[in-house]
Amino acid sequence: MAVTFQLIMSLDGYVAGPDQSVEDPLGVGMTRAFAWFFELEVWRRVQGIQGGEVNESTAVIEEARANVGAYVMGRNMFGGGHGPWPDGTRSALDEAQQAAGDRDVRIAGGADTVRQYLREGLVDEFELSVAPVLLGDGERLFENVGDVRLEQVRAVAAPGVTHLRYRIGR
Amino acid sequence: MAVTFQLIMSLDGYVAGPDQSVEDPLGVGMTRAFAWFFELEVWRRVQGIQGGEVNESTAVIEEARANVGAYVMGRNMFGGGHGPWPDGTRSALDEAQQAAGDRDVRIAGGADTVRQYLREGLVDEFELSVAPVLLGDGERLFENVGDVRLEQVRAVAAPGVTHLRYRIGR
Repeated sequence: MAVTFQLIMSLDGYVAGPDQSVEDPLGVGMTRAFAWFFELEVWRRVQGIQGGEVNESTAVIEEARANVGAYVMGRNMFGGGHGPWPDGTRSALDEAQQAAGDRDVRIAGGADTVRQYLREGLVDEFELSVAPVLLGDGERLFENVGDVRLEQVRAVAAPGVTHLRYRIGR
Repeated sequence: MAVTFQLIMSLDGYVAGPDQSVEDPLGVGMTRAFAWFFELEVWRRVQGIQGGEVNESTAVIEEARANVGAYVMGRNMFGGGHGPWPDGTRSALDEAQQAAGDRDVRIAGGADTVRQYLREGLVDEFELSVAPVLLGDGERLFENVGDVRLEQVRAVAAPGVTHLRYRIGR
């Protein structure tokens, strides 16, 4: 039912490094912010890799995945380059909500897509996994998102990351 | 022994709002990021106000205060307007360390002073109290601080705020 997003963010607010490319889709330096994630058994299993860590992050990742009924993904993230929505953000969301039924719609990204949905007041809740990394450059999540009022829902400390969840006030 | 700082930061990375003035020293909007703090008994007691909340933030605040032997404060925060250090940042720190003995030196602020000490690699550890607020404008803490490597020490969730502590790698 809820519209959500979940992103990994550096402590200085970046969700992608500079110079994103096909070879380096996260942008320069951002891989460091994913270090905790690539260690997880829950990630490695999906990649067909044996082993990995099970820790406080595991439940956060599994719980998030379990609730998602449909994803909305910007064109650039999907691999087709930047560009407008065929029928606008709200139409894409409507389609996703129909597909999701009573489960959540996840705005998968990228950052620009998330910002559009934030700006239009269409997001209900989100989780940021804040990594102990200062990137110094790249794409900031919270830039021109308008007046968004937040309520802290929870914080989960895990090795190499803290998961912060917020609800958006109306 | 350690050189530390502790600041309240909005989720979008600001430690002060825009248009700081004598009447509004935190800058426009930043008071919202202090809401959890002004509710605390540990803050109210110092102001001579009765009552207030005791929660997970209380120990974080008390622990931080207990360890401090001396403060370093930038001129603007002290009330004298912007300006250079009489003998440089390192000399101010030397004096503070002598005064502190075997206790910590706290870089009290403002943001520009903290950034100078970060850039020069003189900070050992810091705590950010991240408030569920998006300011959208103001003074960012992590701007031009150079290549700082961090290790997450702990995260404490409390009503209306999460306290994140980091150690700086060498």
